[in-house]
Amino acid sequence: MSLSLPTIDDIDDTALAARLQRALDDKTKPQGSLGRLEALALRIGLILGTGAPTLQAPQLVVCAADHGLAAHGVSAYPSDVTWQMVENFLAGGAAVSVLARQHGLALTVVDCGVRHDFALRPGLRHAKIAPGSADALQGPAMSMAQCEAALANGMALVRDLPGNVVLLGEMGIGNTSAASLLMSRLTGLDIADCTGAGTGLDAAGVQRKIALLRQVLARHATAHEPLAALAALGGFEIATLVGVVLQAAAERRVIVVDGFITTAAVLVAARLAPAVLQRCVFAHRSGERGHALLLAHLKAEPLLDLGLRLGEGSGAALAWPLLVSACAILREMASFDAAGVARRADTAPAH
Amino acid sequence: MSLSLPTIDDIDDTALAARLQRALDDKTKPQGSLGRLEALALRIGLILGTGAPTLQAPQLVVCAADHGLAAHGVSAYPSDVTWQMVENFLAGGAAVSVLARQHGLALTVVDCGVRHDFALRPGLRHAKIAPGSADALQGPAMSMAQCEAALANGMALVRDLPGNVVLLGEMGIGNTSAASLLMSRLTGLDIADCTGAGTGLDAAGVQRKIALLRQVLARHATAHEPLAALAALGGFEIATLVGVVLQAAAERRVIVVDGFITTAAVLVAARLAPAVLQRCVFAHRSGERGHALLLAHLKAEPLLDLGLRLGEGSGAALAWPLLVSACAILREMASFDAAGVARRADTAPAH
Repeated sequence: MSLSLPTIDDIDDTALAARLQRALDDKTKPQGSLGRLEALALRIGLILGTGAPTLQAPQLVVCAADHGLAAHGVSAYPSDVTWQMVENFLAGGAAVSVLARQHGLALTVVDCGVRHDFALRPGLRHAKIAPGSADALQGPAMSMAQCEAALANGMALVRDLPGNVVLLGEMGIGNTSAASLLMSRLTGLDIADCTGAGTGLDAAGVQRKIALLRQVLARHATAHEPLAALAALGGFEIATLVGVVLQAAAERRVIVVDGFITTAAVLVAARLAPAVLQRCVFAHRSGERGHALLLAHLKAEPLLDLGLRLGEGSGAALAWPLLVSACAILREMASFDAAGVARRADTAPAH
Repeated sequence: MSLSLPTIDDIDDTALAARLQRALDDKTKPQGSLGRLEALALRIGLILGTGAPTLQAPQLVVCAADHGLAAHGVSAYPSDVTWQMVENFLAGGAAVSVLARQHGLALTVVDCGVRHDFALRPGLRHAKIAPGSADALQGPAMSMAQCEAALANGMALVRDLPGNVVLLGEMGIGNTSAASLLMSRLTGLDIADCTGAGTGLDAAGVQRKIALLRQVLARHATAHEPLAALAALGGFEIATLVGVVLQAAAERRVIVVDGFITTAAVLVAARLAPAVLQRCVFAHRSGERGHALLLAHLKAEPLLDLGLRLGEGSGAALAWPLLVSACAILREMASFDAAGVARRADTAPAH
């Protein structure tokens, strides 16, 4: 390939890990009593390489594109909803707009391949490969050149953004199909286990979707390498997100993963560079069939489990304050000694 | 009894419920795709009696007291930790202090019966019944007069606080024992199913705790009515919290319930006035054995499940932004019509 992907090193700082764990254990609380918030604090400290992490200028990146497969009725909504929702994101009326505002997350909407011409304006980034991917039932969703261009777009996007955290979001009618296809191909799980109702198909609709996706996989039986699968099975927004994840990981930014589609992008990125996963915080387990299984495959323990199935980055935004809390605990909580609080009898230092 | 408890009416506004559900369904997202956040928005709207709820001046109330039972070694920590942690709350170094600061929650620490004389200062409220409850193995933890005084203190506290939300917190070495006793007595579940490690007992310690608590229950075999059980099995902070819950419910404030001890207080309050539960949002399922079972008994679906077992109100504070999000979704998200987004084909209004 002509594109050069960033190198992503293993984070293997046992001294810092020990220092972070000791700091957490010294805080005025029973050891481990903040549960998974402590593991989260440890992870963020390791990603940012500091015992006193501060999250700065968080960037919520919503990658949007249309899908050739949508013509086969794999979604309950028409493709026009993709561009209409992009307008809604920018106008501030979508769930992710409301949540980003609540938490002070900078929102960037990226046109990765929406079938619509947008007027340029603040908050919208043009990174369009084509007006929608091709129909993956007929041929590859995109050419390898298009796939590489989308990866490069994602990488350039992160380079242009400030801060040390990226939250992932997406919009694209039909994109649960692309995510299911990538999940099945890269994990080896049967497509039926990877496929759900998306925005709200009924049971018969899901069965039709599974049958169609099975045909698509058969059509691309030789596309097994991560980038070959990505190009064949597609999604310009997913390919762009893979670039976002790789670049953010290379820069050791914290990556907050949203739902099923963004987790599929992380799956592709992790096949290219496994150490990507060390930089990820998985925000939630969604209601979309396949997501729980995909998270388990990645050995990911998500923070929330609220039955969300909206995408957009809404789950990442909802989990965001937990990351802020984890850092605040490390930075601001008093130690037993500093606060003059007695330790438990069996762990007090000997005198 | 001499104390008059507030009347708590059923919230039974089917018109408002229908209006809230319609508003949620009209938002630009697939119906139900925000999962339990939608149920949360509905609940808060019903509590506050409005289709556009706004949470105002949230009050985090941390009730603290010592326990006579602690002398029997039911906790991994000495009783002195109760007052030391109160000082830590006020100095800003405890987990709940850090989280309250993060979220702009007003923190009030209430001395309901700590075995220590505190210097009065802002943020500390004096509502001390006695310096620690009596040993429930020997007699009632408190007299009925003390119990009623604590309830009255909790009610007065809420009357003095602004806003329309109260978040519950507590501190008291030994208070998981009191909560387990109340849970077992009022639900009929065996004490072994209601008893956990608290701040960190080992397995043998938990077995000794269960054996002791079984003796305590036998000692008070006739204390079955909610207030009789509360007085016998005790906890000045729990009795005060029962008063907080009753008054907050009577004023139709949103009540954010933290972990095992505050849920036990809600159990007592709900036995006195079942409609209390309609006003409660359960923040999390804690790691303390007994809490999951108690939540199931109350048919409560908590928001978070992070293995927390700290108390203090820390879980209530961590869940807080989800309540803010739920209200923001109702108030700020655009409808399909307003945003010009197409509905799914099978739910579009007929023309």
